[in-house]
Amino acid sequence: MAHGLWQHLLHLGLLATHWPTSASQPTAAQGASRRNLIFMISDGFGQASEGLARAYMEEQTSPQGQHSWASLLDDMLVGTTRTRSANTWVTDSAAGATAFACGRKSPNGAIGVAHEGAACATVLEAAKMAGYATGLVTTARITHATPAAFAAHARDRDMEDLIARQMLRLMPEGSPGNHSVDLMFGGGRCHFLPQGNADSCRMDGEDLWQQAEARGVKTLTTRQQFDALAADAAQAEQLPLLGLFAKSHLAYSIDRDASQPTLSEMASKALALLNHTNSSSPSSSSSATRGFFLMIEGARIDMAAHDNDPAAHLHEILEYWRTVRVVRDFVEQNPEDTLLVSTSDHETGGLTLGRDPEYLWHPQVLHPVSRSAERICGELRQTDEDALAHNVRHMVLPKHMGVGNATEAEVAAVVRAAAEEQRKCRRMVGEVVSARARLGWTTGGHTGADVGLYAFGSGSDRLHGCVDNTQVGRFLAEYLGVDGSMDELTRALAHVVTEQPGFERTVDRRMHVH
Amino acid sequence: MAHGLWQHLLHLGLLATHWPTSASQPTAAQGASRRNLIFMISDGFGQASEGLARAYMEEQTSPQGQHSWASLLDDMLVGTTRTRSANTWVTDSAAGATAFACGRKSPNGAIGVAHEGAACATVLEAAKMAGYATGLVTTARITHATPAAFAAHARDRDMEDLIARQMLRLMPEGSPGNHSVDLMFGGGRCHFLPQGNADSCRMDGEDLWQQAEARGVKTLTTRQQFDALAADAAQAEQLPLLGLFAKSHLAYSIDRDASQPTLSEMASKALALLNHTNSSSPSSSSSATRGFFLMIEGARIDMAAHDNDPAAHLHEILEYWRTVRVVRDFVEQNPEDTLLVSTSDHETGGLTLGRDPEYLWHPQVLHPVSRSAERICGELRQTDEDALAHNVRHMVLPKHMGVGNATEAEVAAVVRAAAEEQRKCRRMVGEVVSARARLGWTTGGHTGADVGLYAFGSGSDRLHGCVDNTQVGRFLAEYLGVDGSMDELTRALAHVVTEQPGFERTVDRRMHVH
Repeated sequence: MAHGLWQHLLHLGLLATHWPTSASQPTAAQGASRRNLIFMISDGFGQASEGLARAYMEEQTSPQGQHSWASLLDDMLVGTTRTRSANTWVTDSAAGATAFACGRKSPNGAIGVAHEGAACATVLEAAKMAGYATGLVTTARITHATPAAFAAHARDRDMEDLIARQMLRLMPEGSPGNHSVDLMFGGGRCHFLPQGNADSCRMDGEDLWQQAEARGVKTLTTRQQFDALAADAAQAEQLPLLGLFAKSHLAYSIDRDASQPTLSEMASKALALLNHTNSSSPSSSSSATRGFFLMIEGARIDMAAHDNDPAAHLHEILEYWRTVRVVRDFVEQNPEDTLLVSTSDHETGGLTLGRDPEYLWHPQVLHPVSRSAERICGELRQTDEDALAHNVRHMVLPKHMGVGNATEAEVAAVVRAAAEEQRKCRRMVGEVVSARARLGWTTGGHTGADVGLYAFGSGSDRLHGCVDNTQVGRFLAEYLGVDGSMDELTRALAHVVTEQPGFERTVDRRMHVH
Repeated sequence: MAHGLWQHLLHLGLLATHWPTSASQPTAAQGASRRNLIFMISDGFGQASEGLARAYMEEQTSPQGQHSWASLLDDMLVGTTRTRSANTWVTDSAAGATAFACGRKSPNGAIGVAHEGAACATVLEAAKMAGYATGLVTTARITHATPAAFAAHARDRDMEDLIARQMLRLMPEGSPGNHSVDLMFGGGRCHFLPQGNADSCRMDGEDLWQQAEARGVKTLTTRQQFDALAADAAQAEQLPLLGLFAKSHLAYSIDRDASQPTLSEMASKALALLNHTNSSSPSSSSSATRGFFLMIEGARIDMAAHDNDPAAHLHEILEYWRTVRVVRDFVEQNPEDTLLVSTSDHETGGLTLGRDPEYLWHPQVLHPVSRSAERICGELRQTDEDALAHNVRHMVLPKHMGVGNATEAEVAAVVRAAAEEQRKCRRMVGEVVSARARLGWTTGGHTGADVGLYAFGSGSDRLHGCVDNTQVGRFLAEYLGVDGSMDELTRALAHVVTEQPGFERTVDRRMHVH
């Protein structure tokens, strides 16, 4: 049954070796105890990020003089995660996610490929082999580093054409119980669409979207389709499901209209659907799973921090918190067999809650900010050069950012940056707010700090202290009881093609800004 | 017995109210179970500080390819501590230490004085009242904010003349078992010596040192006296003890010669002496204690971070780690009744492990640095103006800081800063190293980030998660079983004089850089 996945890989030429003999195969689902594991990744979420959002909420919600407001995450803190990658003290999201997925160190940039350069089996693949249902939910492109590292193997994170094919090709025709990822929600249709399509970002003419549909994968692209999707047992039997609601990343929370589902909404539907795979009717062609593994990523917490954009960063965190609430409620309804683990792959931005010279910072400065720096700068790019300064002075700064006292120097700096480069513009816009909030940033990239580790539910007492990111990964596999099969699966993946023809690496991965 | 302390306070006019009636007095030591609590404070030690020292040690000690080196502190992580004070998101050390000492929020700058403006009883005072032996060990002046907040009550941390008097006046003549602090090791003789004495920094002629000696307090000022001090039961019976080994703060670890004891040496001797108070001979005039409370502060971790001086910061942390080893060994030898708790009052410097543009940082850059920025700039101050540039270019940068490739602009910046102001010089010297190590800093003050919480020994399982600094303080009192007496003690302290005559507050405490 699950064996068919690997036969399919062989069929596709992705595997050059035969699957190990049946004696050493992982045991199938039937009869084993049921377990659900929800692994949440707050990408680029440092401990100062948690402090930022907590202070903001304390000022918004607590009466004066109450000084012990704690978030839902605070209540679940069990330790910290060390984040270094195989080749540097400052990991990127690819190596960070691979440490969680494979339980092994890998060099920056590589997706599901360990230090030695070969593909490593992931906890998602091992879970699927062992009879669990599987899902990936993210606010980024589904082919972006973090979700990719759980279901693809590529030497470079930017090989997203290859990654898209792998994430789908592990979904063969036939039995819906016989594929790698049962459910994907996120953004990033562009790598599934052929060159020529207006929404495509592929470098070739392959139409993965059409191929998937032809093989019976249910696809969704709109809010309406998402809302209409029943989260019931009948629908659960119709997996696999591919719901990608944007060409690239989903919009920032601070910017979104109702045209895309939120992270918490996607998480809620994913939980319900995957949970129903436990209870598929006996008459169904698909056998009941032994539980599920679901990875949920708050991806754009990181991206806002790359821009040193504190308000966009804050609102991504608040949406992540809402998602934690959804997942935690699910755990509370399934207390005996369900575990939530949340951590981050790394810190981004070198965010600190204070800058020279004073002993204070001002959370409320973020309150009136109504757009991300990304959106502001994207709009400024469309603005006539003649109107730029007027627009920045009279609209962007006072109306969109709540900054009524901008100096002429600040106006000029934003205008200049907007005319020059989007990235420079975004950081300049973020700086206008950060300077008033008295927040510090030291980089547009990542830093090497430890991040928070949170857990709730059955087995959470087994995860605590200051642990390495690879230990978190190994814990995930152990929790699902699939740790014993990881090495064997890795050997079976030894000859997976991790290169994308025509792809040229253009940057030093140690320096890669993602 | 312990009651005598409060009678003495009344005698001194420090208390205007009578001690509550005997019916409501805290129970004395006899018969109660024995407990030892060692509370360690790594002042200004953020989570990036731990990462900094860990990475440095991993590169120094681990073979290539080993990526999971963990410090002794890492092994003891149980959670994080939230640090805000009563009046700002960024605490100073006074409010930070008061939260631990009193279990209550207080405004920045106040020492053992809670939010309402009145003195609050400290865990050290309550422990002493309940029959525990007590000690304070620090690398700062003993009158500095952190140790002061456990044994003094002053509206402003800079009232160190008042603080010195309080810390001693709580040590009356007579029975060595009858005083507030049994043992003090650290720096800061200057506030105990009368104006006119070359080492004095008092604003009056009071000779507290001589007064203490006259009352039978054993005093130490030199390394030789420290080494000669036997850590045995006979000596333990001779408490109180006041060992202050510098006029002001002790030297930085990176700068020290053997003329002062180290933090780990002071901690080791303090532990042995206080432990012997448990086993004083029955024939002794002093009764056996029910255990001890010892506060140990790594004070200058903070000061180096104020200077954004990464090498001095690192070496203070390494000495703090050595002290943790000493204390942990003691706990392991006394497994049933002893607890070590370590945390920080706040983060300092806004240290981050990465700055634009690369995904890396270089711990080994700190290796050749052989002097603190404080020492370098102090020496430059003594240098002839004509020789400054030559000295910086050919001695300070290449020889003391291991920087062989300094630019002319860097040389000029250090020379200019050295001629202008010590503080500016120190940060400029630190920046030359930080720029090469790719470490970021955002302030010369503190930040509002959470800090690590560590525990080891009996009862450590009761302290975990993300807790408020006041919760840590209340936990300390609960562990010693003195939480029930704190409110009553606070009422008894209601009229303690917290003002120092002639002292003028000159700065806004929210902005105070300490």
